[in-house]
Amino acid sequence: MSGRVSGFEAIRALCRDVPGPDEGAIAAVRARQAMLTKPPGSLGRLEALVLWLAGWQRRDLPRLERVEVVVFAGNHGVTARGVSPYPTAVTAQMVANFAAGGAAINQLARAAGATLLVLPLWLERPTGDIAEGPAMSEAGFAEAFFAGFEAVAPGTDLLALGEMGIGNTTPAAALAAGLFGGDGARWAGRGTGVDDAGLQRKRDAIDAALARPSGDPVSLAASLGGRELAAIFGAAVAARRLGVPVLLDGFVASAAAAPLAALTPGGLDHALIAHLSAESGHAALAEALGQAPLLQLGMRLGEASGAALAIPILRAALACHVGMATFAEAGVSGRAAG
Amino acid sequence: MSGRVSGFEAIRALCRDVPGPDEGAIAAVRARQAMLTKPPGSLGRLEALVLWLAGWQRRDLPRLERVEVVVFAGNHGVTARGVSPYPTAVTAQMVANFAAGGAAINQLARAAGATLLVLPLWLERPTGDIAEGPAMSEAGFAEAFFAGFEAVAPGTDLLALGEMGIGNTTPAAALAAGLFGGDGARWAGRGTGVDDAGLQRKRDAIDAALARPSGDPVSLAASLGGRELAAIFGAAVAARRLGVPVLLDGFVASAAAAPLAALTPGGLDHALIAHLSAESGHAALAEALGQAPLLQLGMRLGEASGAALAIPILRAALACHVGMATFAEAGVSGRAAG
Repeated sequence: MSGRVSGFEAIRALCRDVPGPDEGAIAAVRARQAMLTKPPGSLGRLEALVLWLAGWQRRDLPRLERVEVVVFAGNHGVTARGVSPYPTAVTAQMVANFAAGGAAINQLARAAGATLLVLPLWLERPTGDIAEGPAMSEAGFAEAFFAGFEAVAPGTDLLALGEMGIGNTTPAAALAAGLFGGDGARWAGRGTGVDDAGLQRKRDAIDAALARPSGDPVSLAASLGGRELAAIFGAAVAARRLGVPVLLDGFVASAAAAPLAALTPGGLDHALIAHLSAESGHAALAEALGQAPLLQLGMRLGEASGAALAIPILRAALACHVGMATFAEAGVSGRAAG
Repeated sequence: MSGRVSGFEAIRALCRDVPGPDEGAIAAVRARQAMLTKPPGSLGRLEALVLWLAGWQRRDLPRLERVEVVVFAGNHGVTARGVSPYPTAVTAQMVANFAAGGAAINQLARAAGATLLVLPLWLERPTGDIAEGPAMSEAGFAEAFFAGFEAVAPGTDLLALGEMGIGNTTPAAALAAGLFGGDGARWAGRGTGVDDAGLQRKRDAIDAALARPSGDPVSLAASLGGRELAAIFGAAVAARRLGVPVLLDGFVASAAAAPLAALTPGGLDHALIAHLSAESGHAALAEALGQAPLLQLGMRLGEASGAALAIPILRAALACHVGMATFAEAGVSGRAAG
């Protein structure tokens, strides 16, 4: 190592130096909530979501005008081991499908009133096979991280993060294991629908990767992860610094962003797991991150589909907060005394 | 009883004679789902929702153009016992708030692209106190049931049903107990936020009502329920006959519609509990009805708020089904053989 700041060090510094929420904005929302024509707390999690939006947007009255879905795509050397029922070529084919408007996320983003940005990350150069060595060099990891970091536009009101990458539940499971303990048997699931033999190959690949010496969360993300995971990590860090609340999609996106929580307590407080995936490791991962996903609809598609599905829930929560009358405005009696 | 068909008998006959789903429409949706550019089953419950819409709308390609939210309002004699922290006058005040656009459901219906219809049911004449005698006579019950039955417009694509009525978690709990067994301690919850003494008064009122001789589900609904509950029951029956899928709101709406399931196996298959309420009896009620609510966001407001919140989920599910490309259209490779 030379004397200058390395890629890993620069990334670690960005993760440590993150702002907290705006407590004044949270207090302003709480004060208005107490006046609205409903029993206190009766909108449940919708009320918590508005507090969350306000705190991270740093606005007394949050807004959801510029809502963006970003999908990062990457390819993985470990697919050569037969960890997915789909050929690697499908990653690029699906990127073309996104461009043509034919994928699930195109429909979900449109239905949610969100723009969609798809960023393929050097698909023609898959990452290294994690069973044999690090997925990425320090420089290669930093390149993908900053591709994600720079993808977040200042002024975005809400960012939904997801991914596409044949085989990427294997590096995601390896990264979850590296960060939170456990082995391939604990964290590997069936992804897009691998059979029993394929599931065993996933577990073996993860266990081989975990046999290498461990490291800090950033070096683990480079060693065990993938480019689209690194980009989600970078985007989550940028969003925190820019005051942009984040909806994380399922298992892969949650694992991708997890290094931020592992480095900095509360580091993912601005990033909500939107949907509990049917992928078997996601419940344990959400628990490790201290999160209760907003939706649970048995999806396991990726593409930010679960994150996009939560956008209308946030819009509904905000619509209630902004549009409801107060008890005084509506002439509605409050609770009886005593 | 005279020789002519009574109100109860007419209602029982309507409940028994209900159509099943359109299996051809379900098969058409299933065939298209298999061709869309996603791993089989990866959209989870979104796929099941489109099958459900198609089967009950009787359309190979379902649609969600005419989506209506209907809120029935009623008042309850049992409120004189102090079962709610709010005065009975709030029911009419909230109906005025609905008309002025200031309530949560106004915002949620607008956000969901749905029209809102509010039908107050003789608020100036509360039902009888269920702790002392039947809530409604046979004629009074039929009047409320058919107000609901006639509120469903033919051609509606989706109907969200909810209610407003100070004190109405007490008759709802009594009706659930009458239909499925158990007492006030099992079924009474805190409603809009009643204190410990109020909760005990609810339990006592329910137990007193349950001490009367039992009857069939329709007579129980008249004896233990309320007008807005009877109207929801009637609307659910009409929707089934008109090919209109239904989203049921929380605890009160679920209890209101439950007599249809109790009378006819599968009678509520066209009516999905949209949101698992924070009201304590709702989980047991959903289980008794064999349903897994779509959302669980800790809400306990009524007003069809939970049902309205599920509308965008259905829109998203349908948008995927209608808008996604097939594997052949997109040039995406399917699963590897073997």
